[in-house]
Amino acid sequence: MSDDDLRQRVEELEQRLGMLEDVHAIRRLHHLYGYFIDKCMYDEAVGCYDEECEIHFFGGIFRGLAGARRMYCDGFRNRFTDGKNGPVFGFILDHPQMQDVVDVSPDRKTALARFRCMMQAGTHYERNPNPTSISRQWWEGALYENGYIKRDGVWKIKMLNYRPVWICTFENGWAFTPPEFVPLQTTTYPDDPYGPDELTDYTPLRWPEHEVLPFHCVHPVTGKPIVTPPPGSAPRRD
Amino acid sequence: MSDDDLRQRVEELEQRLGMLEDVHAIRRLHHLYGYFIDKCMYDEAVGCYDEECEIHFFGGIFRGLAGARRMYCDGFRNRFTDGKNGPVFGFILDHPQMQDVVDVSPDRKTALARFRCMMQAGTHYERNPNPTSISRQWWEGALYENGYIKRDGVWKIKMLNYRPVWICTFENGWAFTPPEFVPLQTTTYPDDPYGPDELTDYTPLRWPEHEVLPFHCVHPVTGKPIVTPPPGSAPRRD
Amino acid sequence: MSDDDLRQRVEELEQRLGMLEDVHAIRRLHHLYGYFIDKCMYDEAVGCYDEECEIHFFGGIFRGLAGARRMYCDGFRNRFTDGKNGPVFGFILDHPQMQDVVDVSPDRKTALARFRCMMQAGTHYERNPNPTSISRQWWEGALYENGYIKRDGVWKIKMLNYRPVWICTFENGWAFTPPEFVPLQTTTYPDDPYGPDELTDYTPLRWPEHEVLPFHCVHPVTGKPIVTPPPGSAPRRD
Repeated sequence: MSDDDLRQRVEELEQRLGMLEDVHAIRRLHHLYGYFIDKCMYDEAVGCYDEECEIHFFGGIFRGLAGARRMYCDGFRNRFTDGKNGPVFGFILDHPQMQDVVDVSPDRKTALARFRCMMQAGTHYERNPNPTSISRQWWEGALYENGYIKRDGVWKIKMLNYRPVWICTFENGWAFTPPEFVPLQTTTYPDDPYGPDELTDYTPLRWPEHEVLPFHCVHPVTGKPIVTPPPGSAPRRD
Repeated sequence: MSDDDLRQRVEELEQRLGMLEDVHAIRRLHHLYGYFIDKCMYDEAVGCYDEECEIHFFGGIFRGLAGARRMYCDGFRNRFTDGKNGPVFGFILDHPQMQDVVDVSPDRKTALARFRCMMQAGTHYERNPNPTSISRQWWEGALYENGYIKRDGVWKIKMLNYRPVWICTFENGWAFTPPEFVPLQTTTYPDDPYGPDELTDYTPLRWPEHEVLPFHCVHPVTGKPIVTPPPGSAPRRD
Repeated sequence: MSDDDLRQRVEELEQRLGMLEDVHAIRRLHHLYGYFIDKCMYDEAVGCYDEECEIHFFGGIFRGLAGARRMYCDGFRNRFTDGKNGPVFGFILDHPQMQDVVDVSPDRKTALARFRCMMQAGTHYERNPNPTSISRQWWEGALYENGYIKRDGVWKIKMLNYRPVWICTFENGWAFTPPEFVPLQTTTYPDDPYGPDELTDYTPLRWPEHEVLPFHCVHPVTGKPIVTPPPGSAPRRD
């Protein structure tokens, strides 16, 4: 083996190892993001985003750090924690994060990833004896299809796409989710001071309607594109 | 350091890095398999299997791609989705996948892995106002002890062993699972057109009986075999 | 490129790859620990610990292997499994483990890690028709902030810090957790034959009070320390 061969093998190792380090860094970033939002640490959650980020959330798009701050630090903080950056008595919003599929681009500057969470959320009766039905206590299963960007060697969230699959009360379960249980975004900023910058050009379906969030990757064995099946929606009963 | 030393170190790095890449590829494969079955994308799930695969499922063994297709694309599709390859209105079968323990053989051609899932499944009342008790809505905790094989550089599922630990209705919970709540496979193909190729030579215990699915690996600290304790079954009350 | 350059690059690769192998080993160790405690394999769980370990559990500290054995092999085995090392009929304590954030020290001799679990636990009615409210069936969300040490190339648990976030009955949910639902440790060994060696110098808050378990790491993007917000506790209603 010549020196040139050896040098080339070392270069290949550096590239391949770098890819695995990137996967590790992105999993770690998303897991920490999850721990932050669990504890209403919204400043820290926004700190995970790139300046040019966008967030897709219940049919709205929040753009850039100003949009991220509006969603987390203004909207969530107003709705959930009486303005505090941190946990409050009797309010829980746990988001266990799971099932990563992280794919880094060959130039190692961007990445795409699918994750999921299964949420336990609600309000203890000592905090509020009479919350609304949904805010009493609920389960929520959701997917993410996110994008990441590396700036000066640090991975940041470029695009967070949170897509609920099902939401239900603790008491009744997913077999009895009322129609259109959780509202979608309808009003943009500044008409809604906590609203998104724009509405999505698609309408996320809500359980019991059922659709596939498109996969960012090809099939892991066949290498073919993963074709998104049509949604399993039913005619409206009007 | 001589050139020979350096070359040997590079070779060792290639082997060790390859092992980690294999672990990453197998986690990714299992996680994608999980996303596919969530959405009733049974063609894509079968696409994850090797030609010489086997599937252990509720006391039956499905062999080869023909067996896999019979289970997913014939049986599940008939039972769950009215023949569609994809999600349907008001039916959910979410399988969050977790807690990987992936071990690759030194020759990097095969691997064994333990995973688990915690399922949310059922039928919305708008789809079927009167499902059976079990199909209304249920929780299911289960383990996997799977085998994998690498063919032309691509990891495939060689053996999927799905072992439920507990199953219960959403309403009543695991403290009140009825005896023999979910039936085991009893009839093979072709007597049952969706049946397995053969029955297992063991009978998986069903909660509230309680057994250990044997571990594929040795103890991570002591390096000794992990001895499978006897099941925690009770005498039948006949 | 000179030979010296190449040698340095190989050395850097060895260090970086070693770090990723350590992360993998620690995830694997914690996941196996989780599978062991699920199945009441307390000997195997204790086998994951270092001789100089400590365990923080509900306000008590168990020290060394003697303390670990007292907690798992004496206490848990007495309370849960009638002395058996393994699963028993009608008792479940499933701990799905998730959301790892594993950080290895530069010398690769120690590591810190955050994990979480979401537990399904309880007693089937055929085992005990009249358990206490809490032991009938419960959900439990908890965090870990653990420490690890490498001895002769093998990673072991140096410090396990288990911190419940919320506990509730299956029937009533986290909105209705009674005050001080689960007791903290109050009596040390040997006054309590299963008690801890000492009590913690902090009192873990119990839901509906709500605090942040401090993070072992800096913010993944800003690199700044993650400041622990004050707990969200409310004045007692006496």
